[in-house]
Amino acid sequence: MMDIEQIKQLLAATSAAAGEAEPSVEAMRAGMVATTQNMPPAETAEIEAGELGGIRAQKIIPNQYTEGRHLLYFHGGGYVLGSPETHTCLVSNLAVDMHAQTWSMDYRLAPEHPFPAALEDGVTAYRALLEQGAKPENIIVGGDSAGGGTTVGTLLMARDQGLPMPAGQLLLSPWVNLTNQGWSYDTRAEADPMIQKSGIDRMAGLYLNGAEPKTPYASPVFADLQGLPPMLIQVGPDEVLLSDSIQLAERAGAAQIEVTLEIWPNMIHVFQAFHPFLPEAKDAVTRLAAWGAGKTAV
Amino acid sequence: MMDIEQIKQLLAATSAAAGEAEPSVEAMRAGMVATTQNMPPAETAEIEAGELGGIRAQKIIPNQYTEGRHLLYFHGGGYVLGSPETHTCLVSNLAVDMHAQTWSMDYRLAPEHPFPAALEDGVTAYRALLEQGAKPENIIVGGDSAGGGTTVGTLLMARDQGLPMPAGQLLLSPWVNLTNQGWSYDTRAEADPMIQKSGIDRMAGLYLNGAEPKTPYASPVFADLQGLPPMLIQVGPDEVLLSDSIQLAERAGAAQIEVTLEIWPNMIHVFQAFHPFLPEAKDAVTRLAAWGAGKTAV
Repeated sequence: MMDIEQIKQLLAATSAAAGEAEPSVEAMRAGMVATTQNMPPAETAEIEAGELGGIRAQKIIPNQYTEGRHLLYFHGGGYVLGSPETHTCLVSNLAVDMHAQTWSMDYRLAPEHPFPAALEDGVTAYRALLEQGAKPENIIVGGDSAGGGTTVGTLLMARDQGLPMPAGQLLLSPWVNLTNQGWSYDTRAEADPMIQKSGIDRMAGLYLNGAEPKTPYASPVFADLQGLPPMLIQVGPDEVLLSDSIQLAERAGAAQIEVTLEIWPNMIHVFQAFHPFLPEAKDAVTRLAAWGAGKTAV
Repeated sequence: MMDIEQIKQLLAATSAAAGEAEPSVEAMRAGMVATTQNMPPAETAEIEAGELGGIRAQKIIPNQYTEGRHLLYFHGGGYVLGSPETHTCLVSNLAVDMHAQTWSMDYRLAPEHPFPAALEDGVTAYRALLEQGAKPENIIVGGDSAGGGTTVGTLLMARDQGLPMPAGQLLLSPWVNLTNQGWSYDTRAEADPMIQKSGIDRMAGLYLNGAEPKTPYASPVFADLQGLPPMLIQVGPDEVLLSDSIQLAERAGAAQIEVTLEIWPNMIHVFQAFHPFLPEAKDAVTRLAAWGAGKTAV
């Protein structure tokens, strides 16, 4: 076990070692693989390569799951980095705690596939899950960081295409305002050991590829959110994306969506990913799972 | 059972019947007594007249309670109206669900006793509870509307006096920004069947009695909140005080306080008070109680 201060120091050291230069997309991708490859998956789940709607996915089947309960998950990485494999530890532990058969999607990434490719893949996957016979009232959709944005954007697009809504959304430090202009970009910059505005400005540019940052599907805080399912948002105060979560809670609540916003003291961006080391990460994943399981009808 | 739309219609009709004129303080007080006097207390609790630190209180002892667990409660009413008796139904049900011995305080009201009398009484009560041997880690403090503001203000004052903090705060539609200038004062005015800016501007004036509205003890969204205990905030989107809750969650989260903010679709100001009629009120009180009980050490 570690505490959050040790993790912050580790991240600061890693970040300093990476140097001042703007790394290439390939280097950033390799970096995310390197920093996550030794994170152990949950032991009590089968993890296999699969696909959903023709999109590659990691299928995670807990040894004990509730028949009919499904989790559809979108990993983070700024719409540019990451894969189901970089997030196996987090997602498999969430799947196990939630007793849910889980698909962690390898949606298309920028810059090769800019907006709205990620969301189109999200809708394709969700539609395929429904066509396989999963009932919307037993499906939870979720994701971290850009995967949180993908979650909300996917559900907006699915809603607009007339698909039924799932039972709930799990949003871990969601990135949902691609203008990158919330108040916490300034006030939390020093506290955040992972994300700085310059870095995600670049990610946003690669993803948007010229699209207006306030495009509602890309930046759900500017969307009409009516009709979306209940959401649980978890965020830390020591991250520049704190204001994204608060803006989303405010907008969604005003749109008559059931919102639970949890702010976890001293925590950082997607702290749940430190599940093997950090007690608060375990507690947060337990909360996510209990909430998600409680929202489903099974 | 009723649904929230019926309650909204009822409130709108009552409000229209009350007429256009600015009612006297006495008439408003009598109105709150009249509209609450037939609300049944929880059947499974003893309710008796008592005092705490020399301040009159309603003491509520559930038939089943957890030894050592205490709830200290402050009723709402704009710092001008209300009493423990107007809130017996809500508070006794919360006490029963939480298995907590409860003191609902008859703190001093404006205009007879302006700011900071309410908070001074709050600190006196809290100090007395500690002196009776209650352990801070087993005490939850809470309140609705102005009672939510009293809760946070009391704990700020208690912190500054060196008292140990309780285990948590329950805040139901808290009124915590007496400038009355949040965005929802405009956008939710039409949706809110209970509170309008003009009405609580008057209440704020009576309470502040010339004090600056941004005084941190009176308006905790402007306070340094560090060191306060975890808070659960429940609020409805159909109330002008929605922005107060969001501002408080934001400020408290940034101050490293554990925050859970729940926004309940279609709900109105202190909807939990409609406990005998409204399923969502029962669910919300159940959530408050479970959270509060879970925060205590017993």
